[in-house]
Amino acid sequence: MGTVNKSNAAGDGRFAYEGLERAIHEKARLGILTSLVAHPEGLSFGDLKELCALTDGNLNRHLAVLEEERLVTTDRSARRGRPQTLVTMTTAGRRRFQQYLNVLERVLADAAARQPQAAVIRRRSAPDLASG
Amino acid sequence: MGTVNKSNAAGDGRFAYEGLERAIHEKARLGILTSLVAHPEGLSFGDLKELCALTDGNLNRHLAVLEEERLVTTDRSARRGRPQTLVTMTTAGRRRFQQYLNVLERVLADAAARQPQAAVIRRRSAPDLASG
Repeated sequence: MGTVNKSNAAGDGRFAYEGLERAIHEKARLGILTSLVAHPEGLSFGDLKELCALTDGNLNRHLAVLEEERLVTTDRSARRGRPQTLVTMTTAGRRRFQQYLNVLERVLADAAARQPQAAVIRRRSAPDLASG
Repeated sequence: MGTVNKSNAAGDGRFAYEGLERAIHEKARLGILTSLVAHPEGLSFGDLKELCALTDGNLNRHLAVLEEERLVTTDRSARRGRPQTLVTMTTAGRRRFQQYLNVLERVLADAAARQPQAAVIRRRSAPDLASG
C-alpha cells in the first residue's frame, strides 16, 4: 500500500528524468525545436512565429536561449534582396534534442505501465499480498 | 528555402502544443505524476521522494501545486500506527494527464517527421519547385 518494491525498482530517481534539460523542455522552445527538426532546411523567423504561435518578443527571447545553448543558429542575411532571419538547428542541437526525445519516450512508456489491468495482474499472481 | 507551405500545413500554431499545461509539464511534476500513474494505489511521501530524486522541500512545493490544481490528493493519516502521507492522483488528474500525454505523443510524432529523407522525397515529387 503505497510502498515500492525497491529491490525490483530501477533504483532511486527512477522517475527523475534528468535528461529533460530545461533549455529544451520549456514548452515554447520544445515547439521551436520540433518545428526546426521537422524542417531541416531551416525556417524563417516569420514562419517560426506562425508555426509556434509566438509573438516577436517571445520568439526572440527563446531563440536567444537556444543560441546561447548552441542548439540553433540564426543567419540574418538578405535572401533575394529581402533581409531575412533563417533559423536552423546545429548538429549538436540535433543530437541533444534526440537524447531529450529518448527521455520523453521513456516517460510515455512509464506512464503506459500504469493501468488498473496491471494492478489486477499483480494481485492475481500474488493474491495473498493484496490484502491489508 | 525556409518557407512553409501554408496551404498544406495544419495552420497557425501547428507546433504550439497548448496542451502541455505548465502544472504538468514542469520536469519534477511530470516525474511525480508519471510515478503516481504507474502506482494507482498511491505512493508515500518517502517513496515519491526517492523515485523522483527530490528533497523534502521540493517535493512539498510541487505537491502543493498539484493539489492546488486538483491533480493529486494527499492523505495524512496513520497507517498501521505510523503517520504517513499517501499521495494519489485524482480522477480529473488522470484524465488531464492522459490529455497531456496525448500531446507528448504528438510532439514525438512531429519530431519523427523530420529527416533528410523527407526533404529528398519532397524534392523528388516536385523537382521543379526545389530550385532557387
